[in-house]
Amino acid sequence: MTRQAVPLAKSYLLLNHGPVTLVSSAHAGQRNVMAAAWAMPLDFDPPKVAVVIDKNTLTAALVNASGEFVLNVPARALADKALAAGSCSGRDGDKFAALGLAGEAGMCVAAPLIDGCIAWLECRILPEPRNQQVYDLYVGEVLAAWADPAVFSEGRWHFPDDARRSIHYVAGGQFFSTGDAFDVKAND
Amino acid sequence: MTRQAVPLAKSYLLLNHGPVTLVSSAHAGQRNVMAAAWAMPLDFDPPKVAVVIDKNTLTAALVNASGEFVLNVPARALADKALAAGSCSGRDGDKFAALGLAGEAGMCVAAPLIDGCIAWLECRILPEPRNQQVYDLYVGEVLAAWADPAVFSEGRWHFPDDARRSIHYVAGGQFFSTGDAFDVKAND
Repeated sequence: MTRQAVPLAKSYLLLNHGPVTLVSSAHAGQRNVMAAAWAMPLDFDPPKVAVVIDKNTLTAALVNASGEFVLNVPARALADKALAAGSCSGRDGDKFAALGLAGEAGMCVAAPLIDGCIAWLECRILPEPRNQQVYDLYVGEVLAAWADPAVFSEGRWHFPDDARRSIHYVAGGQFFSTGDAFDVKAND
Repeated sequence: MTRQAVPLAKSYLLLNHGPVTLVSSAHAGQRNVMAAAWAMPLDFDPPKVAVVIDKNTLTAALVNASGEFVLNVPARALADKALAAGSCSGRDGDKFAALGLAGEAGMCVAAPLIDGCIAWLECRILPEPRNQQVYDLYVGEVLAAWADPAVFSEGRWHFPDDARRSIHYVAGGQFFSTGDAFDVKAND
């Protein structure tokens, strides 16, 4: 997996168009991954993200214990595994093994950067106990960001083929691919 | 503009795939609209949303004063106005007039449902002073939801043509259309 660093000030671009994400986590020799459609940028500089993580999940336990997570942006080719990651619990066994996923620890966090994804945001949680308790809502500061340079470089997405497009989750196993890019001018 | 009620429990589907939104607001005879890419569902039942609204905007002033807003999902045909709505301030004059936008008050809120959009979520803010102050982050409860039945019905999007697709914002005037739908099974 080729990864190129994305400048922190540009890292919001990896999430700005609303793709589904995989939240990966690790603590004390245990790791996990879950799907999260409810993730978005929260600030530019320093870059922050917001993501909803159900408090009953193993992911929440690992994120709470480690104070860290990675938001991975899966390519369309990974859609079946993204769906499966949202349909089973890591409490029933290591999901990476169960789903055939691989990954390695980030530069700043122990949570894994998942192979087959096209962008990665390494985050530390900014503790917000009320948000976490009432809304299952986590705020993270982005410590490092990466993208597959075949897909994102110079601050722009340029999907080389459909298998490497980002995807957007609807429900019930249905996704949309990220579609055609187009530019408009404010004074059109 | 044809609008059909969307059951509240299904209203998250209008935002789940991460489209750009227009936030409309009204208070004391003044109205406004701004673009917000940073919006997402926050809960299913009762349905909630999270949206980032810069505290320096007229929208924030109107939302704070009225306790309400509408998240409108613009169609691709409205992309130029969505960009323009994000590029000027309602403090310089009524944006609806300036941009040629029209709309009428919602069923539950005074904020307008904007013509040319394909889905609408009427929301009341759930006051979270710390989120609003520190992160410009608003939590809203969805009171009513609507969609153009030519585009969304029976809990599914079915875009009849490219002009009525939802859109996803990148930066600098670049958008993506919502692309091809596809289904996967968790055990593929």
